[in-house]
Amino acid sequence: MSDAWLDEIRWTDDGLVPVIAQQADSGRVMMFAWMNRESLQLTAEEGYAVYWSRSRQKLWRKGEESGHRQKVLDIQLDCDEDVILLKIEQEGGIACHTGRESCFYRSLVDGQWQPVEPVLKDPKAIYNK
Amino acid sequence: MSDAWLDEIRWTDDGLVPVIAQQADSGRVMMFAWMNRESLQLTAEEGYAVYWSRSRQKLWRKGEESGHRQKVLDIQLDCDEDVILLKIEQEGGIACHTGRESCFYRSLVDGQWQPVEPVLKDPKAIYNK
Repeated sequence: MSDAWLDEIRWTDDGLVPVIAQQADSGRVMMFAWMNRESLQLTAEEGYAVYWSRSRQKLWRKGEESGHRQKVLDIQLDCDEDVILLKIEQEGGIACHTGRESCFYRSLVDGQWQPVEPVLKDPKAIYNK
Repeated sequence: MSDAWLDEIRWTDDGLVPVIAQQADSGRVMMFAWMNRESLQLTAEEGYAVYWSRSRQKLWRKGEESGHRQKVLDIQLDCDEDVILLKIEQEGGIACHTGRESCFYRSLVDGQWQPVEPVLKDPKAIYNK
């Protein structure tokens, strides 16, 4: 497969592109992360989400520790060629490191951020294997 | 309303936060943009999405030209406090400046970005009023 499609992306000055991961069947927005060129290419090749960890400055195969991998069903690009939307199947049904389904678990209610969804699994049980 | 909730957001060095706008009823991810503190506060106060245009370096009341405003039903925050998810009602059913429902209208198919949804309205008819 040619990688000309990677050249069409307008990468940031740091060589990154923002990525939204959306559960394909429910439409739930699960998380937001970043990819560099290598991680996006690996995502397309391997069929599972590979991000670029800005804090650790390394490739981050989502689920490598937790087992909560993201199978990629579709890779979409926006009109400005600078944002990626992944349609995924979230393995284990948990995307968030807090043990919740989605990283977006707080809503602004009466001027405060309030958790509006439960922890499905204790993070200690996810990461201390 | 106190604005302590704005202090909980981890803004970028440029004072911005990435924002995902999702159609509330269908779950469709419509667009991605940025907000600064003022625009997020205005979004909460006015109940319609106000972004920060990085290219124009000014507040951008979504729909101010097109009429395609975004009524905000919910403002959500992610686990790292550095991404916002808006649940919206897209007026006119068109979020994209190309006249499509969503800005994410291209899928990676056989190594190429291919449009997978139609233009609903000619952009000239949207913007040249």
